[in-house]
Amino acid sequence: MAKDAIAVLTSGGDAPGMNAAVRAVVRSGINKGFNVLGIKRGYRGLLKKDFVEMDLRSVTNILSLGGTILYTARSKEFQTPEGIQHAAQNCMDMGVKGVVVIGGDGSFMGARALSEAGVPCIGIPGTIDNDIACSDYTVGFDTAMNTAMEMVDKIRDTSQSHDRCSVVEVMGRRCGDIALQTGISCGATAILVPEVPYNIEKDVISRILETRKNGKQHFIVVVAEGVGGSVDLAKYIERRTGIESRATILGHVQRGGSPTLRDRVVASEMGYKAVELLAEGKSKRVVALKDGKIVDYDITEALNMERVFDTHLYEIAKTISM
Amino acid sequence: MAKDAIAVLTSGGDAPGMNAAVRAVVRSGINKGFNVLGIKRGYRGLLKKDFVEMDLRSVTNILSLGGTILYTARSKEFQTPEGIQHAAQNCMDMGVKGVVVIGGDGSFMGARALSEAGVPCIGIPGTIDNDIACSDYTVGFDTAMNTAMEMVDKIRDTSQSHDRCSVVEVMGRRCGDIALQTGISCGATAILVPEVPYNIEKDVISRILETRKNGKQHFIVVVAEGVGGSVDLAKYIERRTGIESRATILGHVQRGGSPTLRDRVVASEMGYKAVELLAEGKSKRVVALKDGKIVDYDITEALNMERVFDTHLYEIAKTISM
Amino acid sequence: MAKDAIAVLTSGGDAPGMNAAVRAVVRSGINKGFNVLGIKRGYRGLLKKDFVEMDLRSVTNILSLGGTILYTARSKEFQTPEGIQHAAQNCMDMGVKGVVVIGGDGSFMGARALSEAGVPCIGIPGTIDNDIACSDYTVGFDTAMNTAMEMVDKIRDTSQSHDRCSVVEVMGRRCGDIALQTGISCGATAILVPEVPYNIEKDVISRILETRKNGKQHFIVVVAEGVGGSVDLAKYIERRTGIESRATILGHVQRGGSPTLRDRVVASEMGYKAVELLAEGKSKRVVALKDGKIVDYDITEALNMERVFDTHLYEIAKTISM
Amino acid sequence: MAKDAIAVLTSGGDAPGMNAAVRAVVRSGINKGFNVLGIKRGYRGLLKKDFVEMDLRSVTNILSLGGTILYTARSKEFQTPEGIQHAAQNCMDMGVKGVVVIGGDGSFMGARALSEAGVPCIGIPGTIDNDIACSDYTVGFDTAMNTAMEMVDKIRDTSQSHDRCSVVEVMGRRCGDIALQTGISCGATAILVPEVPYNIEKDVISRILETRKNGKQHFIVVVAEGVGGSVDLAKYIERRTGIESRATILGHVQRGGSPTLRDRVVASEMGYKAVELLAEGKSKRVVALKDGKIVDYDITEALNMERVFDTHLYEIAKTISM
Repeated sequence: MAKDAIAVLTSGGDAPGMNAAVRAVVRSGINKGFNVLGIKRGYRGLLKKDFVEMDLRSVTNILSLGGTILYTARSKEFQTPEGIQHAAQNCMDMGVKGVVVIGGDGSFMGARALSEAGVPCIGIPGTIDNDIACSDYTVGFDTAMNTAMEMVDKIRDTSQSHDRCSVVEVMGRRCGDIALQTGISCGATAILVPEVPYNIEKDVISRILETRKNGKQHFIVVVAEGVGGSVDLAKYIERRTGIESRATILGHVQRGGSPTLRDRVVASEMGYKAVELLAEGKSKRVVALKDGKIVDYDITEALNMERVFDTHLYEIAKTISM
Repeated sequence: MAKDAIAVLTSGGDAPGMNAAVRAVVRSGINKGFNVLGIKRGYRGLLKKDFVEMDLRSVTNILSLGGTILYTARSKEFQTPEGIQHAAQNCMDMGVKGVVVIGGDGSFMGARALSEAGVPCIGIPGTIDNDIACSDYTVGFDTAMNTAMEMVDKIRDTSQSHDRCSVVEVMGRRCGDIALQTGISCGATAILVPEVPYNIEKDVISRILETRKNGKQHFIVVVAEGVGGSVDLAKYIERRTGIESRATILGHVQRGGSPTLRDRVVASEMGYKAVELLAEGKSKRVVALKDGKIVDYDITEALNMERVFDTHLYEIAKTISM
Repeated sequence: MAKDAIAVLTSGGDAPGMNAAVRAVVRSGINKGFNVLGIKRGYRGLLKKDFVEMDLRSVTNILSLGGTILYTARSKEFQTPEGIQHAAQNCMDMGVKGVVVIGGDGSFMGARALSEAGVPCIGIPGTIDNDIACSDYTVGFDTAMNTAMEMVDKIRDTSQSHDRCSVVEVMGRRCGDIALQTGISCGATAILVPEVPYNIEKDVISRILETRKNGKQHFIVVVAEGVGGSVDLAKYIERRTGIESRATILGHVQRGGSPTLRDRVVASEMGYKAVELLAEGKSKRVVALKDGKIVDYDITEALNMERVFDTHLYEIAKTISM
Repeated sequence: MAKDAIAVLTSGGDAPGMNAAVRAVVRSGINKGFNVLGIKRGYRGLLKKDFVEMDLRSVTNILSLGGTILYTARSKEFQTPEGIQHAAQNCMDMGVKGVVVIGGDGSFMGARALSEAGVPCIGIPGTIDNDIACSDYTVGFDTAMNTAMEMVDKIRDTSQSHDRCSVVEVMGRRCGDIALQTGISCGATAILVPEVPYNIEKDVISRILETRKNGKQHFIVVVAEGVGGSVDLAKYIERRTGIESRATILGHVQRGGSPTLRDRVVASEMGYKAVELLAEGKSKRVVALKDGKIVDYDITEALNMERVFDTHLYEIAKTISM
């Protein structure tokens, strides 16, 4: 008798650690007696029946690779009722009894739709932005932050040599976590995030001037992508303070690179958990890290949660960066 | 009227992130109206009255530095009742109303004794080994693991090119956490830790042979320092399997290096919390990270806790490394 | 009898390895019996008499630091005949019999003027751009390129996961060496440098299309700062080829960071050589690396040389990146 | 008419950058109209006819990989006259008109023998030790040194925090270049290499004591593998100076890792040159970097050259590390 099959795909923006999750799904799946298929380029590949057989060796040596060996893509067709039906049919044709979807909120909506069309799906939060409300942590977040931090460390060398102010824009469209933690780790004089309204005079200029009074002569200002305007901000700082200021937008460098240990380990745990859930017959769940533990939520419940910005940490950042 | 003073010292083995903790103590302390003193070379410096005034700029640009700018040392004299009295007297002479001690269990015993001698002390877990029972995380752990992981990644390149087995010994005398997480992150075929009894045939040789049957031709075995014997193990593996095997002891490289973001951020939070506790008049407490939150415990209570090894994670490691 | 003094300054843009050069000047100078002074913030500090005594320990642990511990700045006043006289007078007041100037062509013009005003000067090429005609290598070049390469390696992870084309702009205003070598090291499909005229259709679009015909689905295009226009180029590539394209400007990250071994070693050799030249009574010379050897040239002669772009290497790049 | 074929193999110890050389051989070879074959596991694979067809895409994304995608191995059979004949016959059977051999002196002896048996061979120096007399540089050397340097930088953090002396043993059995350059780049107080006889009292103990007199309190001693005895040396230093001393043997970590830019670029140039030589009908040549240029030598002539240790650089090291 043929084995049951499960499949795994990565969707949305790629994130370091996705490969560790894929590997854990493949190995745990095989360990539980499943046939495991990889789907290339996310939902687009699912619609094109771009399946590939995964064996134990197909995921050898991928732990240290950035990006996703399954590729990722966006698919408009999948977002239609017909697309969902078509995708579900393709799963059934291939004998796929469950799909692990690694991605962000958009990908989870797809997973929910597919679940409702009869194909049990489990989501794994994989996005560098840490913008999934139900989980304290998303796969890729730690690597992205460490990459940003290392880049700011380098910028500070030159900033300090020239007594400059460097405005650095990091990723995070609707979530300021990368900005907050990178800012703390680099001793940023000011940090601007989309979750907290700010006043340039009070939250940037005054902080710089006051810190200068304390003897500091070079400054780092970290700005989340969702706040933006870093080039103009640098100009404004220079005009208001007389301190030579420059902006750098770190950009896509933050998405890539060999994953940190934390991303590899958490992704492995989440991949293992996702397969466990499928094996238990669960569907429409998302795996999450909550208070230091791996748990799972109903996708709809998860999508309805609201992210809470860590205002306490933000206060600490202000206190210790003077 | 003179301000109250608090002091900060680092003790025991150094760990990356200690400087971030020192910086947070200094800045938070000044922010709360304290005079802050640094004590050089731990309790030894305390006995020698080796205090140094810390101002806001004294901790500029130390976030990215490994080691500890306050140095560290061991002190036998401090472990005697006379030593404790002498140390307490030195604190009183300097007007020190509280001391933040960054280190491991040994350092916390000192902090407890000093607290009982009338000088309120707060401990911060700073040790790469993650061997403090009360805290899920110790400052330095993340950096040490990432360093170990990057080294194993490099070893694997050559191991793979030669179809070899590499036995890698990582730090952790009584705690296998570095070994476990490094092993998972590097896809080690076998992981040996002091917490779990093992049988070489079953837990190493059989795993290698079985994985080879699946097509793998190079192997990583991670061994915790507390298990040891990696050179002999490599020889045994070679004799039993015919696979060329080599041992590498990663050693002190794991202690140093610029701290990861996680170590910088957690250390900052813990330093801030320690000052908060002193400001509230608390004494004999240790700061900890528990279930994702910064909390504090009575030192004696903390020292009496027992570390729980994550056997579930150990099982995951076995499942996904085939 | 008082010792003769020599001084050292860093000028122009900072470059990783400058600290190694400063260290070598200080240690070799002391070894040859000189008093060694550091001048802060280049010629501006020289005009302000911002000298600082350097002893053996003042340069401890600076080998691994990016930037320059002597700071750097630009000075308009120094560029006037009065400025030069003033600077020369300051040197004489301080008993300075020679100055080592670490920087680029602009800094060497200053060194020449100061030499002609009676203060023997020796230049050391310190600039990440490798744009000094007389020397095959400038201090900072290797670090900047490796930093650029590592960033492009990360960008490629995400570029590959999405089947994208990434246009990456690296430093080099008038010199394409960073672009050329980074491009080769990252397997860029096309490399645009200021020294070689290019035709977008032939040198970018056709190369991408042809490489795609060979099966490649993601592409890196490296553009030197002196060519610029990377955002527009990405848009053009997307329009002409249908391949999703994004631009990243690496920016100031390339200036900082802990220097590579090569930058530390070459800077050490050059600093040693500069002091040797001063000790021999030489003036108005610039140290250079030529055909693998440390040599020296008259500054005017050096400034009149013309840089030769390595067209052979450029051809190799084209051949092996298909 | 069938195209002529050439083949490429890697032999001896693996070295970072070997993949860049393989890639350049494959791409340049195809560009010149050859069929290119890869031979797996060096001469052993040649004897087993373990050839694999290489096309343009077979070497995509390997520039950044450490180790060698063609694997490497040692072969006793190949060292016999029968082995050579067998290997030559295998080449002829496959229509191979030339072989590029990437490795060290031992590999070049094989290449000479194969050339003399009628199969034109070109050697490329690929070994981390820089121990090939005819070439100023071997592929892998720069990466190995930078890896060693980064590890010593980390060790220094902990060494400094504890006022310790760290003895670090780096690779280099008969060649002290890694030790010398790593030592300079890390500010080692003493450097021991196989090329220069040493006296422990004068060259280690006295240097440490003198440097301590100058105020230094932590020390790095770098020892080449070919000198060895680092554990005993650490004990001796501790006994003679009273300074706590520890030894670390860096080991195989130095062989692996993503190659530096220099290794990728030089390997690319050498691979290109090797194919050029084969296309010109040359045989029994080895490619070399000499005085900053890519040249080639007769293999026998190359093997008879004697390596010259850079004693001038060794003197600089002594002068600037006080």
